[in-house]
Amino acid sequence: MATVADIGYSAAINLTSAIIFLLAFAMLRLQPFNDRVYFPKWYLKGIRCSPTNSRSVVKKFVNLDFGTYIRFLNWMPAALHMPEPELIDHAGLDSAVFIRIYVLGVKIFAPITLLAFMVLVPINWTGKTLEAPAAKDLTFSNIDKLSISNVPFGSKRFWAHIGMSYVFSAWTCYSLYKEYRIIASMRLRFLASERRRPDQFTVLVRNVPPDMDESVSEHIEHFFCVNHPDHYLMHQVVYNANMLASIVEQKKKLQNWYVYYHNKYERDPSKRPITRTGLMGLLGAKVDAIDHYTALIEQLSEQEAEERENVMNDPNAIIPAAFVSFKTRWGAAVCAQTQQTSDPTVWLTEWAPEPRDVYWENLAIPYFDLNLRRLLTTVSMFFLTFFFMIPIAFVQSLANIESIEKVLPFLKSIIEKPSVKSVIQGFLPGLALKLFLIMLPKLLMTMSKIEGFSSFSSLERRSASKYYLFVLVNVFLGSIVTGTAFQQLQSLINEPSSEFTKTVGSTIPMKATFFITYIMIDGWAGVSGEILRLSTLITFHLKNTFLVKTEQDRENAMDPGCLDFATSEPRIQLYFMLGHVYAPVTPLLLPFIVVFFAFSYMVFRHQIINVYNQQYESGATFWPDVHRRVIIGLIISQILLMGLLSTRGANKSTLLLIAQPVLTIWFHRYCKGRFESAFVKFPLEDAMVKDTLERAVEPNLNLRLYLEEAYVHPVFKSDEFEKTVIVDDEEENPLIQTRRTCRSSKPESENEAASAGSC
Amino acid sequence: MATVADIGYSAAINLTSAIIFLLAFAMLRLQPFNDRVYFPKWYLKGIRCSPTNSRSVVKKFVNLDFGTYIRFLNWMPAALHMPEPELIDHAGLDSAVFIRIYVLGVKIFAPITLLAFMVLVPINWTGKTLEAPAAKDLTFSNIDKLSISNVPFGSKRFWAHIGMSYVFSAWTCYSLYKEYRIIASMRLRFLASERRRPDQFTVLVRNVPPDMDESVSEHIEHFFCVNHPDHYLMHQVVYNANMLASIVEQKKKLQNWYVYYHNKYERDPSKRPITRTGLMGLLGAKVDAIDHYTALIEQLSEQEAEERENVMNDPNAIIPAAFVSFKTRWGAAVCAQTQQTSDPTVWLTEWAPEPRDVYWENLAIPYFDLNLRRLLTTVSMFFLTFFFMIPIAFVQSLANIESIEKVLPFLKSIIEKPSVKSVIQGFLPGLALKLFLIMLPKLLMTMSKIEGFSSFSSLERRSASKYYLFVLVNVFLGSIVTGTAFQQLQSLINEPSSEFTKTVGSTIPMKATFFITYIMIDGWAGVSGEILRLSTLITFHLKNTFLVKTEQDRENAMDPGCLDFATSEPRIQLYFMLGHVYAPVTPLLLPFIVVFFAFSYMVFRHQIINVYNQQYESGATFWPDVHRRVIIGLIISQILLMGLLSTRGANKSTLLLIAQPVLTIWFHRYCKGRFESAFVKFPLEDAMVKDTLERAVEPNLNLRLYLEEAYVHPVFKSDEFEKTVIVDDEEENPLIQTRRTCRSSKPESENEAASAGSC
Repeated sequence: MATVADIGYSAAINLTSAIIFLLAFAMLRLQPFNDRVYFPKWYLKGIRCSPTNSRSVVKKFVNLDFGTYIRFLNWMPAALHMPEPELIDHAGLDSAVFIRIYVLGVKIFAPITLLAFMVLVPINWTGKTLEAPAAKDLTFSNIDKLSISNVPFGSKRFWAHIGMSYVFSAWTCYSLYKEYRIIASMRLRFLASERRRPDQFTVLVRNVPPDMDESVSEHIEHFFCVNHPDHYLMHQVVYNANMLASIVEQKKKLQNWYVYYHNKYERDPSKRPITRTGLMGLLGAKVDAIDHYTALIEQLSEQEAEERENVMNDPNAIIPAAFVSFKTRWGAAVCAQTQQTSDPTVWLTEWAPEPRDVYWENLAIPYFDLNLRRLLTTVSMFFLTFFFMIPIAFVQSLANIESIEKVLPFLKSIIEKPSVKSVIQGFLPGLALKLFLIMLPKLLMTMSKIEGFSSFSSLERRSASKYYLFVLVNVFLGSIVTGTAFQQLQSLINEPSSEFTKTVGSTIPMKATFFITYIMIDGWAGVSGEILRLSTLITFHLKNTFLVKTEQDRENAMDPGCLDFATSEPRIQLYFMLGHVYAPVTPLLLPFIVVFFAFSYMVFRHQIINVYNQQYESGATFWPDVHRRVIIGLIISQILLMGLLSTRGANKSTLLLIAQPVLTIWFHRYCKGRFESAFVKFPLEDAMVKDTLERAVEPNLNLRLYLEEAYVHPVFKSDEFEKTVIVDDEEENPLIQTRRTCRSSKPESENEAASAGSC
Repeated sequence: MATVADIGYSAAINLTSAIIFLLAFAMLRLQPFNDRVYFPKWYLKGIRCSPTNSRSVVKKFVNLDFGTYIRFLNWMPAALHMPEPELIDHAGLDSAVFIRIYVLGVKIFAPITLLAFMVLVPINWTGKTLEAPAAKDLTFSNIDKLSISNVPFGSKRFWAHIGMSYVFSAWTCYSLYKEYRIIASMRLRFLASERRRPDQFTVLVRNVPPDMDESVSEHIEHFFCVNHPDHYLMHQVVYNANMLASIVEQKKKLQNWYVYYHNKYERDPSKRPITRTGLMGLLGAKVDAIDHYTALIEQLSEQEAEERENVMNDPNAIIPAAFVSFKTRWGAAVCAQTQQTSDPTVWLTEWAPEPRDVYWENLAIPYFDLNLRRLLTTVSMFFLTFFFMIPIAFVQSLANIESIEKVLPFLKSIIEKPSVKSVIQGFLPGLALKLFLIMLPKLLMTMSKIEGFSSFSSLERRSASKYYLFVLVNVFLGSIVTGTAFQQLQSLINEPSSEFTKTVGSTIPMKATFFITYIMIDGWAGVSGEILRLSTLITFHLKNTFLVKTEQDRENAMDPGCLDFATSEPRIQLYFMLGHVYAPVTPLLLPFIVVFFAFSYMVFRHQIINVYNQQYESGATFWPDVHRRVIIGLIISQILLMGLLSTRGANKSTLLLIAQPVLTIWFHRYCKGRFESAFVKFPLEDAMVKDTLERAVEPNLNLRLYLEEAYVHPVFKSDEFEKTVIVDDEEENPLIQTRRTCRSSKPESENEAASAGSC
């Protein structure tokens, strides 16, 4: 058991690191040469450009206006300043809704904290159980005197905990309901105000059945001409262009090198640049660099043309999926929501993701394969989740004074020092856990890709589900069961799983200090690290010094990153769950969580305004997942409380708690019926309104022309680079009318935000 | 514990009663005056009519052709004779699919029985655990020597049970998959071959939002004209006509009396019939009956006309729901499957039930009320399910020799006789259970009506779900836990619910004899009782003798009944579950179940051919429910086996069993994705095919005229009686083209079946 002193050490360490991070950030962001690290969003929007134009050389790199250093915490109010509608314009609805998760956390837990401290803390404090055998168990008296452990076995005081549990759940549900309603209406407003977009008219059709007499394209055309005669407009078949895409990628790199040498030559025309043919220009015969790359590019261009020819002419390169476009949004909405044939495994239609959101590799998977892949992923997810636990438990058991002394007896003298001991006990278990978690997201994303989802947004949502399961089992349950009682794991396997709730429930109060430490490391210090962007900062400057050759390279070196929904959201969910589990048990943990939510909100609001650049816009489609997972956490907390109380001699009263998960589930179902359709369905009325409006405003619109190029595989679009294509696509057809709005309707607040960024 | 002798007694009693029932049926059905009891279906189809025309008086009542008595079991092959396509024509798809549930039972359990007897019985038999303390526990050696109880604690023999459990589950899933596929294709064929029906063009719209400026009717028309401009045809508002319906009902009765007295007068014109005005014509002043009823009818007709006027003119009598019809099936399919507005609580569309399936009272419930009603029903269902257990346990504890002796000591001498003792122990517990179950279905149906479903078919499906839950908790779990160990119930409440699986699992083998008895009473004797239709027989003859006044009355007295899905199906599910639970534990129970399924199949096939007259045709919409519940039973059996084995010293090996429910759930999800849409969605292609065909065949069809009267509330249809209206409706527009097909394409088999019925 960690003592108050341990927590104090841990808090000191983590607060110090958090403050150092924040100070470093406050200083670094003021230096112009870090501008592209801390304000890339504005560069991408074209509002800022490199500080090369007007200033002196020193001023290009260092900020000498010392006044700005005094107001070094200004970024906080600045981040909170931008009003929400403008934030949605600026950063997209996904981001704006994402940070609302943090607000939701504050809204839920701030009143709960107050209430718990007013009601439960006095009740626990006067419980006096832990004072009786004071001499023996002195170490855990100070914190645990505030927790449920201090209430005597079978006491009537447990009624207070049961009652408060109901109050907490009711408040959570109320907050969730309100939030769901707000976000549903935000989404509907957002969709209604959107400009014309190709995906509004388009449906993704998968599993086109093979036909003996017709090509895939003909088959699709005939099918939709027959079954949607008044609405079908055109379709775009999907080519299997993975090979071509890799050639294009390769050519892009060579072109970059060519530009680099060409620039070099232009700056110093006296000497033609020279390179070597072998390993990255380091080995092999010397050749003229410009000629060499020209030749290579020509060679690749030929290959590309050939492959392009191949793909376009080979009927086998056409996969049995297509983007089918309709004359009206109404027609597309109908097709996306209805079943086409009596066999539900073919002609599957779904609303098309926006073009830059499409994950092209997965469009061709047949129905049965999809099911098989799903089973395999589920099974491997099961093994990953349950066998990953063993290394964590192992490391955590090492991070315990006695084991370290046993394995490495020569360290005994150092470890036994009180300060070192506290560091080890307070810091290591959380750190071990954190390290394990870093390597995981990529693996989960790969698994989701194997599972066969067809858009990046659904891949992210799916990975988030996986990650949540993992966090739940390994971080939450894993820490509770193995941390204090590694032996319990063994007995847990040999016992029937039924004892589980009880075991976990009774262990919960003992783990409060561990989770407080965890919140400080992962939550406080972690979030401060996020705003500092240390790794991005270092990478950018390394690249800038050694690798940047062209302006294109500099663009690439500037890595704005994006909100990583797949990992961030499940982590937030862990805090929700911790809050709910500990609210009736150890209220002392709650303030740490409230601080986490409030601080994170500020940091991420700053980040989405100044840094992140989202790769796609899904219109907050993820909210039902967020809602569901908060509910799951709540239900788990309710069940664990039952388990805990049943070990504390409050058997009969725990019966009262059975109704709680039932009511919560009902609440979830009600919310689902009430709001979820706003996130998955496409009301015909809204489609009709937009259609009618458009017909009135632009009666001569040539929709076929507009849609022709929309869903072409990126490699077929043009000879420009993929990235440029995406940017172009957004420019032509902005999702968020940032630049115009910023410059016209709200110039003052925009400039203010921008100047707050650079002040 | 019941001994083999007890089971023998029980078997003797039940077999005897079953055989008596069957013999009685074989005799009674041959008598012409029972014709309307045993062959009502043929009367309703118009193929048979009352045997009054040609025969002599005696022959009218008694069958004197003794040859037919010799072939008294002929009904069995006759029942099996009709081929399935004809059966669907004759009795509807619902009935034909319903009896396939019994076939499914045979298909699943016959091979499992064989396998269990070949593999598990020898393994159990040679286990020799129960022989060791032979002197003490002799009573349960004979049956339990074949069960898992005979295997020593911690024996390696349990691997056989685990392996066989996997084999059984795999075979069950395979059979379920095959059956689901067959039934989905049967349904699709059935829907494709249907003639034009109003519900193919019609969508039920509920929760029409109120509008300040427009009436409900105008609002609906405008909404659909705007949002389905090319497809909307017309709509039919729904009146709140409950009051009117009751007046019409009353008038119908009076008219019956009038016809009765009128007939009487015509037969004997010398004397005008006389009645009294008070209580059912028994008290009060004497009046001329014909004049009296004429006056009463006139009075009611005035009232009716007034009320009719009221309903038609009062805007508040129009409820915010309507049947909206479209020009094409395609248009209706689109509207039924899509969401209309961004608020998912208004303008809810669903495919309209067929007109005779509509449950008019429930059409007006608002969305929030619906949710509230659902919560209230769920809560009361919970209380019903869990507190109904107490009386059952009480009665069962009484039905145990020791308690009876304690409470009624003077009965001791009688009870102690071995034969009486066996009767009590073998018969009473099952009977008590059965009696409780009889009063339940009506209550559950009322609850479903309160819950707000809008068609009889969905009400039945919903009641079936409730009844299944009830059977599961009270019959299955209730019998297991309270029967042998009533004390366990108390301890179960005080323990955490986690111990449950273990307790139930370990009690299972002990309850095998009880369930064998139950199968014989409820299954064998119950089903024989079903074919005898004793209560219907008595009721019919009583009515015929004392009450039948007119031909209309005779029609009413003939009560064909119908398949009661809401109670029959959950009962079958109990047998599925018993089979799965006992297959690896006590294989001796399996033959009883196989016999039940085979025998029931024969009986119900006979009944749907000759007796039952379904009130609606849902096209086997219930199959996904059946499939799901078999899966639930399977999963429960798998979990209970884990609980059982973990108490028998096979802890580690039970870990292997965890994968089983996971795989089963995956299988269920796969089947759901693969087949369920055939039961809930309406493919556009099929709609389009039918539309195109119809347009080609009948280009001048006036659909508006065809649909005008279809969804009018029965009381507005005409002045005829409700029943006649329904029959007319079917005549005009037969769902099942029985008469024509029977007489033209397959005359020989039809006549054969009919003659087999009357031979």
